[in-house]
Amino acid sequence: MTASLSPTAPLSPTARSTIRRGARRARTDRAELYAVLDAGLICHLGVVLGDAPVVLPTAYGRIDDTLYLHGSTGAGTLRAAATGAPVCVTVTHVDGVVYARSVFHFSMNYRSAVVHGRARIVDDADERLAGLRAVTQHVAPGSWDHARLPNRKELAATAVLALDLDEASVKVRTGPPVDDDEDVAAGGRWAGVVPTRTVFDVPQPCPLLPPDTPAPPHVAAR
Amino acid sequence: MTASLSPTAPLSPTARSTIRRGARRARTDRAELYAVLDAGLICHLGVVLGDAPVVLPTAYGRIDDTLYLHGSTGAGTLRAAATGAPVCVTVTHVDGVVYARSVFHFSMNYRSAVVHGRARIVDDADERLAGLRAVTQHVAPGSWDHARLPNRKELAATAVLALDLDEASVKVRTGPPVDDDEDVAAGGRWAGVVPTRTVFDVPQPCPLLPPDTPAPPHVAAR
Repeated sequence: MTASLSPTAPLSPTARSTIRRGARRARTDRAELYAVLDAGLICHLGVVLGDAPVVLPTAYGRIDDTLYLHGSTGAGTLRAAATGAPVCVTVTHVDGVVYARSVFHFSMNYRSAVVHGRARIVDDADERLAGLRAVTQHVAPGSWDHARLPNRKELAATAVLALDLDEASVKVRTGPPVDDDEDVAAGGRWAGVVPTRTVFDVPQPCPLLPPDTPAPPHVAAR
Repeated sequence: MTASLSPTAPLSPTARSTIRRGARRARTDRAELYAVLDAGLICHLGVVLGDAPVVLPTAYGRIDDTLYLHGSTGAGTLRAAATGAPVCVTVTHVDGVVYARSVFHFSMNYRSAVVHGRARIVDDADERLAGLRAVTQHVAPGSWDHARLPNRKELAATAVLALDLDEASVKVRTGPPVDDDEDVAAGGRWAGVVPTRTVFDVPQPCPLLPPDTPAPPHVAAR
């Protein structure tokens, strides 16, 4: 695991993690990278298979400056990522649809983090458990201490990958549309933002639970 | 534009669009591909730059069996995609967090569509407008008829890409956790689903609008 950098350390952009389009939307604090990653439920993992990109949704977790991914040892994308080939992990939150007065200026409010690098397969037993814990706690906080932990057979079937967060970019758009002056002056067209957000609904207990089993606090709190 | 296939036509999977992991979650109707694509706000577009994947969120729209993407003519990923190099477009909806009795069986309920192919740059003026209309209407239904349409300069700054939907896969997970019998019998641990969903909040008018300008029906209806 990489030692944690200061949350205010710059993201140390390389050429490909330097945002060129919409550079005013680029964020450069490590704390903002953490915030975007920690607020997500899933990431989109990109690998190259043959000469083609493959992008699949997957769970992840973070410990300091390391992102952990897990999956079946049989999954093609995980296997490809585990060879040390380049990967890209992207986490996106859509915060709103930006309605402009002109079609050209329609946009989205969003927060996105893009991490480039080469993943390493985690072999060390302690780090494997720590990585799996990070993924579980990320997706379902409190669950590592509630659920049965993985046994030897389950661990053998699970690949754990680590990706260092040293090449990453963060982009954030907020606020109202940016329209041309003439369109604002012309009037007659609505403009603004329709905010979007992800909500958690009432937990649905497994039908195999005894009737009226209450959801424990770590579930009910969502 | 490709002629529309029957919504019940199979997705005609190739090797890479054949789902191997969790094959029971694979859907094979074209109508299900349309449903997943049409319900999304953004996709994740994967391209290969150098030898590395790059995955970026972007807007899209669909007409029959063609997906349209647009962006600045200056954007690197769009330029890469426009060369006819392989791309991958993935749309994912997270529908819930699946809490199991064992960490190993934690999962997500989701719907995802993965489209493989080579995008073509759209040159025909009518198809360019149709593609831009599809993207705008997808992100903000009703807006193409409300907002000012793109002028010549704006059109010149916009790249429109088309990707045929003939190599795609759809995967859907629904329902409660699938736990081992021994864990169910042992009892004492909660299991179930915490559903998640994206909601639209009250529209926020642009501060430059006259006070009390009402949101038009196509906006208020969200």
